[in-house]
Amino acid sequence: MTPGIPDEYFVRGNVPMTKEEIRILSISKLRLKEDSVIWDIGAGTGSVSVEAALISKRGVVYSIEKEEEGIKLINENIKKFNVENIVVVAGLAPDVLLDLPSPDRIFIGGAGDKMYQTFKTALTKLKRDGIIVVNGITLDTAYSAHRYFKQNKYKVETICVNISVSKEAGNKTMMIARNPVYIITAEKEG
Amino acid sequence: MTPGIPDEYFVRGNVPMTKEEIRILSISKLRLKEDSVIWDIGAGTGSVSVEAALISKRGVVYSIEKEEEGIKLINENIKKFNVENIVVVAGLAPDVLLDLPSPDRIFIGGAGDKMYQTFKTALTKLKRDGIIVVNGITLDTAYSAHRYFKQNKYKVETICVNISVSKEAGNKTMMIARNPVYIITAEKEG
Amino acid sequence: MTPGIPDEYFVRGNVPMTKEEIRILSISKLRLKEDSVIWDIGAGTGSVSVEAALISKRGVVYSIEKEEEGIKLINENIKKFNVENIVVVAGLAPDVLLDLPSPDRIFIGGAGDKMYQTFKTALTKLKRDGIIVVNGITLDTAYSAHRYFKQNKYKVETICVNISVSKEAGNKTMMIARNPVYIITAEKEG
Amino acid sequence: MTPGIPDEYFVRGNVPMTKEEIRILSISKLRLKEDSVIWDIGAGTGSVSVEAALISKRGVVYSIEKEEEGIKLINENIKKFNVENIVVVAGLAPDVLLDLPSPDRIFIGGAGDKMYQTFKTALTKLKRDGIIVVNGITLDTAYSAHRYFKQNKYKVETICVNISVSKEAGNKTMMIARNPVYIITAEKEG
Repeated sequence: MTPGIPDEYFVRGNVPMTKEEIRILSISKLRLKEDSVIWDIGAGTGSVSVEAALISKRGVVYSIEKEEEGIKLINENIKKFNVENIVVVAGLAPDVLLDLPSPDRIFIGGAGDKMYQTFKTALTKLKRDGIIVVNGITLDTAYSAHRYFKQNKYKVETICVNISVSKEAGNKTMMIARNPVYIITAEKEG
Repeated sequence: MTPGIPDEYFVRGNVPMTKEEIRILSISKLRLKEDSVIWDIGAGTGSVSVEAALISKRGVVYSIEKEEEGIKLINENIKKFNVENIVVVAGLAPDVLLDLPSPDRIFIGGAGDKMYQTFKTALTKLKRDGIIVVNGITLDTAYSAHRYFKQNKYKVETICVNISVSKEAGNKTMMIARNPVYIITAEKEG
Repeated sequence: MTPGIPDEYFVRGNVPMTKEEIRILSISKLRLKEDSVIWDIGAGTGSVSVEAALISKRGVVYSIEKEEEGIKLINENIKKFNVENIVVVAGLAPDVLLDLPSPDRIFIGGAGDKMYQTFKTALTKLKRDGIIVVNGITLDTAYSAHRYFKQNKYKVETICVNISVSKEAGNKTMMIARNPVYIITAEKEG
Repeated sequence: MTPGIPDEYFVRGNVPMTKEEIRILSISKLRLKEDSVIWDIGAGTGSVSVEAALISKRGVVYSIEKEEEGIKLINENIKKFNVENIVVVAGLAPDVLLDLPSPDRIFIGGAGDKMYQTFKTALTKLKRDGIIVVNGITLDTAYSAHRYFKQNKYKVETICVNISVSKEAGNKTMMIARNPVYIITAEKEG
């Protein structure tokens, strides 16, 4: 399985899943290494975890998820893609993060209510040269994440991704818009 | 080196290069396999070729490029990334394609003046279950490529990608737009 | 009533209506004069007709619409906004256009099946210094309209408008995308 | 002169000017009345002031601008468009606002360093059923303006506008992106 796994390859249920384009862009921004230790906070269906685990073959992915349905789906996707380096962590960020091994990479798919506490814990535990990637669909997350990392002297880049997708309508081709997603990437320097 | 290589890792010269986001999205749409035979038509700096060659480790990438400067850059990037499965092919599509081994995957970064002839040759030579991905920055390429593949009974998807990128301006964060890129993906069915 | 009338001011029924942002941009591209003779081809609810008629007070708007429900809605909106310079024309372009007075301005909200014939008739009847504005939601219309007018030596500009709109979600603000719309403006020179 | 005045009709100098599409969308969101009292804060070249003054014929526009070059351009555009209901106010918001008549409508083209103080003064002076429209090109302005008005119980809508514009390149048509602009509209209810 090569990077950029299509959405339909995953077991999905009713849990919201990062769309394939946003997933591969986010993973690309994470600049994974073969042995990276990765936190996937708010793992949802586990699609980012699976894709990251396949790339960081000799590393390990901690999939943090609070909902039972999500946890079930992550386990199904682990089985489906036959990955052995994902550890499912049931619980809520930031509390559940404290006992995990320090990560090289952190992905936050959806910043929950305790966004700032999660960011704070993330920054505390992130290793040197570590990278954090956050996906945001709200102005609040885009602004707050970007600003928080900047104030903490991280090198920050935010991209806003607007994608529309073709749909055949008779013999013509319409373009259907997806909602914009902000991808915030913060890199710890030095 | 994991997928989603940043632009600045490549030797670039003055040749236009597909931006990293568009590159990884395009490669993702190609659904490469480890042993894919890939044509990269209009390879430019070779950034797509290099990234594809790293993913399709046991496959081979034919980098077709007509400009001398491009060929020089491709060779430099081959050396820099230490890839051994890229064959540089100097010449112009579609003529130069006729003698190449049939591909599983075709990437067309920029449809040149002989777009339809190139498409035609591509479809003739593409293997069963093959995939073609075209990048277009013009309405003409988006429309023509989408329509051509549709008329030839391929399964076609076109996405239009609008990305804006943050830029610090004083203590505020502006968003700077990149030009929209159309990514057309055509899949041979049956 | 000043320009840029909100959608909810119109009687709408189930007929698709140009969104207010696209409507005012399109009208703005039409560069109406107080005495312009305007064709609104495929008038739908009549929202563009009404807005144009209010601006071109001493001109006249011909609202061409083939569907009975549309015609009913146009008449209701004429009454609601109390405009007296709209002539409702029941019928199908291009046939129904032939007997109308030559226009200074033409708006085509949706290019139907007979797009090229409609364009051809439009160009034949358009007065000197006339302007045509077309809205397209398909790649086909964007490409075909732009190219057709260019080939006929008109000065053409196409803009692609991607708008997303805020929606409160809890105490955060999501951005919801609208589908992209192409606005093609063609100006007869000399 | 009808609404949606093209950029090239204005005297521009080197002062940044709101592009015509953003200008007409902003004015449209202002829902001007014929007799509106309008503040145009950070008036720049005066393009919004002129367009608003033409619509609100029996109203008055206060064009607030701190830069000398801007003031000169506003006066030139007043002369060029022959409008008589613009009052140029040299000075810096929010201080200079305190002595102005209470407005029905406020347009803030660029929120300066004293954004919150300007917002505060604006809300204090805005009349019942008044409307404020803010243009923002930064995440900071989009987020802060939206949130500020929401917290003050205004009805707020933010749109993000991404426009790309055609450019002929040989016999093909490229689309060139403009930077995204956020238009925040706040309405005082009750």
